[in-house]
Amino acid sequence: MVTALGGGTVRDVLLDRHPIFWIAQPEFLLACFAATALTLIYVHLRIPAFRALFVADALGLAFFTVGGVQIAEQVGLSGLLALLMGVITGVVGGVLRDVLLAEIPLILRPGQLYATSAIVGAALYLLLERVGVSRDPAALAGMVTIALVRFAAIVWRLELPVLTVEDPL
Amino acid sequence: MVTALGGGTVRDVLLDRHPIFWIAQPEFLLACFAATALTLIYVHLRIPAFRALFVADALGLAFFTVGGVQIAEQVGLSGLLALLMGVITGVVGGVLRDVLLAEIPLILRPGQLYATSAIVGAALYLLLERVGVSRDPAALAGMVTIALVRFAAIVWRLELPVLTVEDPL
Amino acid sequence: MVTALGGGTVRDVLLDRHPIFWIAQPEFLLACFAATALTLIYVHLRIPAFRALFVADALGLAFFTVGGVQIAEQVGLSGLLALLMGVITGVVGGVLRDVLLAEIPLILRPGQLYATSAIVGAALYLLLERVGVSRDPAALAGMVTIALVRFAAIVWRLELPVLTVEDPL
Repeated sequence: MVTALGGGTVRDVLLDRHPIFWIAQPEFLLACFAATALTLIYVHLRIPAFRALFVADALGLAFFTVGGVQIAEQVGLSGLLALLMGVITGVVGGVLRDVLLAEIPLILRPGQLYATSAIVGAALYLLLERVGVSRDPAALAGMVTIALVRFAAIVWRLELPVLTVEDPL
Repeated sequence: MVTALGGGTVRDVLLDRHPIFWIAQPEFLLACFAATALTLIYVHLRIPAFRALFVADALGLAFFTVGGVQIAEQVGLSGLLALLMGVITGVVGGVLRDVLLAEIPLILRPGQLYATSAIVGAALYLLLERVGVSRDPAALAGMVTIALVRFAAIVWRLELPVLTVEDPL
Repeated sequence: MVTALGGGTVRDVLLDRHPIFWIAQPEFLLACFAATALTLIYVHLRIPAFRALFVADALGLAFFTVGGVQIAEQVGLSGLLALLMGVITGVVGGVLRDVLLAEIPLILRPGQLYATSAIVGAALYLLLERVGVSRDPAALAGMVTIALVRFAAIVWRLELPVLTVEDPL
């Protein structure tokens, strides 16, 4: 529930958008319970397919990020702020999950292009909208881009250049 | 202060319930200072009794969880959402404390029945209310249940079945 | 961005002060990007001066803490609550940064006087205002005090007495 609902919750709190989406529509909670139950049954019966988690995570990132940008647009934000709200919606749930497990969030580890993929896809969506592409194809293009960048990062182990600084302490 | 006030603060933020309880009644802050001072003096004079912390924590969990459900009821929530707000009120303070100490929260460790006890007690309270038991005895039954489940988990090392999945990475 | 904007964001959420400062004035985001770019270029060209980070951090702590107190005063808070909002504004950004790196926050480590310096400076500011000193010199005195206490803690390795309790577990 933290992973699935955390990003949208932080977005709604930051935007003062009340009631928060899962208070307005408690079906979100029921969907989490159902997904948890199905997942527990599945992994009890068989080992999950290699990287199944990463595929699910990439699709969630794509869907939540673009959806978050659209909600930010609904409340009148645009450009950088809409992009940022999309990225927060997409990545904060996973960040909270990793923080609760006392691990450095995936988003801060090299070789993931995690935030990068969300930023690129959200920016593409906003850019396509600005040049006149209608909402749904623009959203689809943004989501596909996010998923593809994430898959590429995992398959080819792409990474942005890492800057190392000698610790001055 | 984070442990004592964190759960109720997150609950109030999620419910858009302003001013937040300790801003509305700063006496809560003074109570925290007084409790901290008394605790420091006490542990300075003698080693705390074995598991004293766990007893205090179980009583706090019982009180905060049922209190959180009642506040959610005040703002018009019921059922699953009221239960969830109770659990958030009861457990999030301790979660924040553990996160700040870079430890995996107690609530996520096996053999604690931590969230479980809060869920069971909050559900019992809501159920008793629904079948017509009046508010105060229902709350007392919920709180006693939470404390007893926690004590039982600690004393007999009860735990829910743990599902282990081979890491697919 | 988390370090720079996190404390003020939590303060604004707790005070129900919307739109949050960096949504109201997105220039804050641009300033973060510019500062990040300049820092990356600088450390790419040469090793940062010894303790440069600590100096920047102490100045930020001084500025954010007193600024946070003043914003709390604007919304009608005073005394303990204004002080607490100042400390939250000053320290929470760094706490979030350390939590995301799975480290125990600087503020909880001995020998830093981190929260202590913020508390002392915020209290001095509020005290000077109460005795009739006008706003700007009181703020300057508070900020200088915070920076000096932090520098003193680092240079002379000052620390508050540490209370050690045998772990009863």
